Amino acid sequence: MIIVMKAESTKEDVAHVLKEIEKTGLKGVLLQGTNRNVIAVIGDERILPQDFWDVLPGVEKSVPILAPYKLASREGKDFNTIIHLPNGKTIGGEKIAVIAGPCAIESKEQIVEIAKRVKDAGATAIRGGAFKPRSNPYTFQGLMEEGLIHMAHARDVTGLPIVTEILTPEHVKLVSKYSDILQVGTRNMQNFLLLRAVGESGKPVILKRGMSATHDEFLLAAEYILSQNNPNVILCERGIRTFETFTRFTLSLSIVPVLKEMTHLPVIVDPSHGTGKRSLVNPMSKGAIAVGADGLIIETHPDPEKSFVDGPQTIDLDAFAQLMEELKPVARAVGREI
Amino acid sequence: MIIVMKAESTKEDVAHVLKEIEKTGLKGVLLQGTNRNVIAVIGDERILPQDFWDVLPGVEKSVPILAPYKLASREGKDFNTIIHLPNGKTIGGEKIAVIAGPCAIESKEQIVEIAKRVKDAGATAIRGGAFKPRSNPYTFQGLMEEGLIHMAHARDVTGLPIVTEILTPEHVKLVSKYSDILQVGTRNMQNFLLLRAVGESGKPVILKRGMSATHDEFLLAAEYILSQNNPNVILCERGIRTFETFTRFTLSLSIVPVLKEMTHLPVIVDPSHGTGKRSLVNPMSKGAIAVGADGLIIETHPDPEKSFVDGPQTIDLDAFAQLMEELKPVARAVGREI
Amino acid sequence: MIIVMKAESTKEDVAHVLKEIEKTGLKGVLLQGTNRNVIAVIGDERILPQDFWDVLPGVEKSVPILAPYKLASREGKDFNTIIHLPNGKTIGGEKIAVIAGPCAIESKEQIVEIAKRVKDAGATAIRGGAFKPRSNPYTFQGLMEEGLIHMAHARDVTGLPIVTEILTPEHVKLVSKYSDILQVGTRNMQNFLLLRAVGESGKPVILKRGMSATHDEFLLAAEYILSQNNPNVILCERGIRTFETFTRFTLSLSIVPVLKEMTHLPVIVDPSHGTGKRSLVNPMSKGAIAVGADGLIIETHPDPEKSFVDGPQTIDLDAFAQLMEELKPVARAVGREI
Amino acid sequence: MIIVMKAESTKEDVAHVLKEIEKTGLKGVLLQGTNRNVIAVIGDERILPQDFWDVLPGVEKSVPILAPYKLASREGKDFNTIIHLPNGKTIGGEKIAVIAGPCAIESKEQIVEIAKRVKDAGATAIRGGAFKPRSNPYTFQGLMEEGLIHMAHARDVTGLPIVTEILTPEHVKLVSKYSDILQVGTRNMQNFLLLRAVGESGKPVILKRGMSATHDEFLLAAEYILSQNNPNVILCERGIRTFETFTRFTLSLSIVPVLKEMTHLPVIVDPSHGTGKRSLVNPMSKGAIAVGADGLIIETHPDPEKSFVDGPQTIDLDAFAQLMEELKPVARAVGREI
Repeated sequence: MIIVMKAESTKEDVAHVLKEIEKTGLKGVLLQGTNRNVIAVIGDERILPQDFWDVLPGVEKSVPILAPYKLASREGKDFNTIIHLPNGKTIGGEKIAVIAGPCAIESKEQIVEIAKRVKDAGATAIRGGAFKPRSNPYTFQGLMEEGLIHMAHARDVTGLPIVTEILTPEHVKLVSKYSDILQVGTRNMQNFLLLRAVGESGKPVILKRGMSATHDEFLLAAEYILSQNNPNVILCERGIRTFETFTRFTLSLSIVPVLKEMTHLPVIVDPSHGTGKRSLVNPMSKGAIAVGADGLIIETHPDPEKSFVDGPQTIDLDAFAQLMEELKPVARAVGREI
Repeated sequence: MIIVMKAESTKEDVAHVLKEIEKTGLKGVLLQGTNRNVIAVIGDERILPQDFWDVLPGVEKSVPILAPYKLASREGKDFNTIIHLPNGKTIGGEKIAVIAGPCAIESKEQIVEIAKRVKDAGATAIRGGAFKPRSNPYTFQGLMEEGLIHMAHARDVTGLPIVTEILTPEHVKLVSKYSDILQVGTRNMQNFLLLRAVGESGKPVILKRGMSATHDEFLLAAEYILSQNNPNVILCERGIRTFETFTRFTLSLSIVPVLKEMTHLPVIVDPSHGTGKRSLVNPMSKGAIAVGADGLIIETHPDPEKSFVDGPQTIDLDAFAQLMEELKPVARAVGREI
Repeated sequence: MIIVMKAESTKEDVAHVLKEIEKTGLKGVLLQGTNRNVIAVIGDERILPQDFWDVLPGVEKSVPILAPYKLASREGKDFNTIIHLPNGKTIGGEKIAVIAGPCAIESKEQIVEIAKRVKDAGATAIRGGAFKPRSNPYTFQGLMEEGLIHMAHARDVTGLPIVTEILTPEHVKLVSKYSDILQVGTRNMQNFLLLRAVGESGKPVILKRGMSATHDEFLLAAEYILSQNNPNVILCERGIRTFETFTRFTLSLSIVPVLKEMTHLPVIVDPSHGTGKRSLVNPMSKGAIAVGADGLIIETHPDPEKSFVDGPQTIDLDAFAQLMEELKPVARAVGREI
Repeated sequence: MIIVMKAESTKEDVAHVLKEIEKTGLKGVLLQGTNRNVIAVIGDERILPQDFWDVLPGVEKSVPILAPYKLASREGKDFNTIIHLPNGKTIGGEKIAVIAGPCAIESKEQIVEIAKRVKDAGATAIRGGAFKPRSNPYTFQGLMEEGLIHMAHARDVTGLPIVTEILTPEHVKLVSKYSDILQVGTRNMQNFLLLRAVGESGKPVILKRGMSATHDEFLLAAEYILSQNNPNVILCERGIRTFETFTRFTLSLSIVPVLKEMTHLPVIVDPSHGTGKRSLVNPMSKGAIAVGADGLIIETHPDPEKSFVDGPQTIDLDAFAQLMEELKPVARAVGREI
C-alpha cells in the first residue's frame, strides 16, 4: 500500500502513521517528495481495512497495491476453475455452457416441456424461478416449494441439472434439497449473510453481478463465498444500470475479458435480463461468446406472450433452438465449442 | 395506460389487444393516428403488470398513466405522514429529526457515551449497527445481539429511541425486541422478503434508497412495506452510484423535493454514507435541510480515527454538536425548526 | 403524442390544451379516464418541440409517439445506407469495414509505414489525428495541417481513404481538402454548429456517440447532419461513461443491434477508446462483429510504448494483423466477410 | 507518482522504468515489496502525460500524487479568486451572485423587461442566449447578433452586466464585443479550441461542468482557460447524467464543497438546467446556497408557457422575486448575504 500525506501534514503526522504501520507488523518506508511525503507499506496490507489508514491525521489518501480478493484473484494461480455438474457436463472448460428455462416455474407440464426442448437444442442445464417476489408487490410471487418439486421432476425426466435462485439464508436448506446450482441474484450480490450461507452449502453458485457493482465489489462478493471453502463460484454479468433507457440495463460485455484477466473463475452472461428485450437476446448471446464468455443463461418459454413474468425479454423454444444452431460457428470462431 | 402499436402492426393485432383489454374488465379506445394506432385503456391499469401488454403481438410500447404505488402516492391524500416515536418525538412534522450514532456498536461504554452526547446536542434518536457484514469478508462483522443489548441500555439511560439495521427476515423478531425503528439498508432495498417481514413487524422502518434505484423503484419498495398494513415508512436518500469518484456516492439532494411532490411519506438524508467524506457532512447536512428534508441520519463517534468501520465519513462528537448549532438557522430559514 | 393531464387539472386546462392543439393544425381527442384525463394528438406531432406541451397549465407530461429523427429513422425506409469510399470500398454493406491507424499523426514516415502495414492486413481505410487538443493543456496538441499533408501522402502511396477528426467549423474547408471521411468526436456530438458544417461539406461523416448520449440524442445528432442533405453518416459507438472504472469507458455493444433496429445508417465500433486497454481490443472487436457491427475503428501504432497519445489502448501492427486474421471466422459465423 | 509493477515483471522491466524516469530528470526510488515492486517518482511528475508510464513493459498502473491542474488547484494558494464585474459587483466574495434571465433572447422588449425586473429583485447580472442550436434540428435556433444587440441595450438600461453563451471560437470576437461574461456550455466543456479562445479573450468565463465530467476533468478544463493568462474563471455545476429519469439531470450539489476544497475559483450552480423542472428551482437554489455555492444562474421569463426554449424549467418573474426573498435567510444562515 502507498499512503500519500497531505501537503500540509506535519512531521508528527508522518511519525504517527509510521508508528501505526509498525504496530501491525508491516514495514513503512518514508519517501520525501518535492511537494508531498509518501509512505510505502511493505508486506501484505490486507490485514487491516483500507479505511483504517485514510482516517489517520495528515493522510490524503491510501492506494492499495494488492487486490483485496485473495482467493478469487488469478494472481499466483495458473489454472481456470472448472465446475463439474451432475450430468457430467462442466462450466468453465473448453465447452460453452448454456443454461435455459423460464423466469418463473408455472406448472409441472410447463417446466418438463421446456426441459425436454432445451435439452434437444443442446442446453447444459435448466433454470427456473420458484420464489419470485418482484418490484411490484401486487404481482405474481412464485410457486415456492411446489415449483422446486416440478423442477426436480424435470431433471428426472431429462437428466439436466437444475439452477434456481435463492433469496434468503433461511431457504438454503430447502432449495439445496432440490437444486444442483444455487443462483444469487443481482439484488442480493451484497447480501452478505446469503453469500455466507450459499458458501457453506458447498453447492455450485451462480453469482450475478449487482446492477451497480464495480468489478472489485463483484470479486469481493465471490470472495465471500470462496472464503467458506466453496470453490464452485460462477460469475454472471447481467447488465448494469446506466443512463441509457432503451434497454432496461446495459449489458457490459467488456467485463467478461476483464474478469478473465483478473480471476480464474468461470464467467457467464445473461443476455435476457441484461437487455430486457427479446430481439436483442440473439445478437448479444453471440457477442458474449465472441468476447470469451464461458456460458450463457437465457430465458425461454413455450409462449412468451403468456409468460407470467418477464415476457418482453423471453424468447420462445423455436427461437432458442435456432439460436443454439447460430452460436455454434461463433464458438468455433473463437476456439470453443457449444 | 396508453398502448402504442407498431407502424407495421395489423388489424388483427389491434383486435387482439382490444380483446385482451376487455377480458381484464378495462375499456380500450382505439385512436387511429396518421402514422400509428394508439389504444387508450380506461380504468385502473394496475391490476395487471405492465409487462403483460408489452409482449402482445404488434405492440411497440405501453405507457403507464398511474403511478404503480397506490399507498405511497400522494395522489388522493392531502396529508403528510408523521411517524410517532417512543420518546414523544416525531419524524415528518415541522420539527426536523436528527438520528446520530456510530456505524457499528463497539461496546456498552461507547454507545452510552455517544447517546448522552448526541442527546445533549439535540438528537432525536440514536443509531448503531449490530450486524455489520461488509464488502470485504476479512473485516469486522459486528457485535450482533450483544450490540442490541448495549443499544437498549443506551436508550434506558437517555430516553432516545433506537435505530438499527436489519439484514434478513430471520432477524426481525430479535431486532424488534430491542430496536424502536428498523432500518433497511441500500443493499436490501429490493430484498422483497425482508420488506415484507419489516412490514409485518409494524415497527417504523427507515428505508434507504438503493444505490442505483430510480424514484419509482424506491417508492415501490416503500409500497411493499405499506402493503403489509405498516404505514410507518421513512424514506432515506443515501447517495447514488454515478461516474463521479471523488465522493464514494453522489448524494442526490434533488430527490428530496421530488419525493415530497410524489409521496406523503417523510424523507430524510444520510450525508455520511452519501458522501463518504467527513468534511462534506456539514455542508451537505445544511443542503439537505434547505431542500426540504424532514431529517438527517449522521455517523458520529468519539474518536473516528479509532472507529472500527467507516471512519472516513464519521464526524466526532464535538463536530456533531457544532453542526447541530449551525443547522438551526438553516432550518429556520426554510420555516422549520430542529 | 399523448398528453396526460394532472389529476387536479381543471376543465379550463383541458379546453386550453385542446385549443392549442387545434391552433397547430393537429387534432386533439379527449379521453376521460377513471383517474386522469388524457388527450391524444392525431397528426405529425414533430412540428412543435415537445417542451411546448409540457408547460401548458394542468399538463403532467406528454409522451411522444413518433421518433423525432425523421431522416435517420428506419420507419418507412426498407434499405440500409451504404457509404461509398474513394477506393471502391464501402461501409454498411455485407463486407465489414476496418479503419486503422494511430491516434495522432507523428511524422510522414510513421503514417506511411502504418498505412502500408494495415493495408496488407486488410484494412479499409486509415485514420490519424492532426488536431489533438487534449484534456491536459500541458501535453502534445497535434501536427495540424502538416499532419493532414502526411496523411494525404499515405493515401497516395496505399490507395486507402483517409479518416480524420474535425474539431471546429472553421477547419471544415481545410480538413475536407485532404480527408475522405470527416470524424466528429465524442466531445463534439452535440456541437451543433460543427454538425451543420460537416453536413454541408457533403463528405462522409463518422459520428461518434457522446460519452453520455442516449440513443435518441445520438440519432438526433445524426439527423442534424442528414438534414443538410448529406446522407453519408456512419454511427460509431465508442464507450459510455458509467460507474465502472476498470475500463476508461464502458463499451456498450448492445447499442449496435438497437441502432440497427432503429436506423438504416451503418454502425461501427471503436474498441480502442471504448475500453482504454490494449488487451481488450481483440476480444471486444470480435464481440462487435458478433453483435452485428458494420465495421471497426482501431488504434494501431508500430511502437505503442513510444506513441505520443493514447498508448495504453493502442495495439502494435503485428497484433493488428493477427486480429484481422482472427476476425475472419467471426465475421463468417454471422454471415459477413471482412 | 507511484508506479506499481506487475507481479510477473522482470528485473529488466524495473531497470527500464528507472532509466526512463532518469531521462526525464526526475528521481526513481525502488521499493521491493513482498508481492510487488513499486517505484516512487520524486519530483514534479506533471512534465509527462501519465499515459507515458502506463505503457512501459511490466507496469501494472501508475498512481499520480499531484493534481494535474496547477493553476486551478488550491495547493499553495491561500486566497479565493474574486471576479470583478463592470457594475462593481463581484462573484466569489462574501456576497452571493445571482444571474438571471431567459434561456433564449426573443426580442428587445422581452430582454429589457426581464432585466428591469430581475434587477429590482436583486440580481447581479442578466443572462440570455443568442445562439441556440438545439438537440432537435427542426426547432428555434436563436436570434444571433440581433440578440446580442438587444442584450447590450438591456445592460444600458439597467446597468446589469451581461452573460451569454459562446459556441465556437469564431464567435469569440463578436460575442466579446457585447457580452461582459462569456459562458461555455456543458456540451463544450471539452471543446479545447473554444477553451483556448475564451482564455485569450481575457473576459470572465462561466465554465459549465460537462454532463458526464468528473471533477478532475472539470478542473482541467478550467486549467485550459487559466493557462491562457485569464484568471477569471467561474465554475458552474449544472447537473450530471445518471440513471435517474425524473429530473432531466441530477444536480450534484456535493461537488460544490468538493470544488471549494480543491480550487480557489468561484463555484456557482444552475438549478434550472440541473433539474429541468420548474418546481425544483426554488428548493435546489436554497440547497445550493446552503452547501456553499458562490452564486446561482436561474432561467426566468415573463411567461414561461410562451418561452421559445426550455419552458419546463423556467420560472416566471414573480416567482424569481419571491425566490430572491426566500434566499436571503438561507444565505444569512451560512454566513453569506445575497
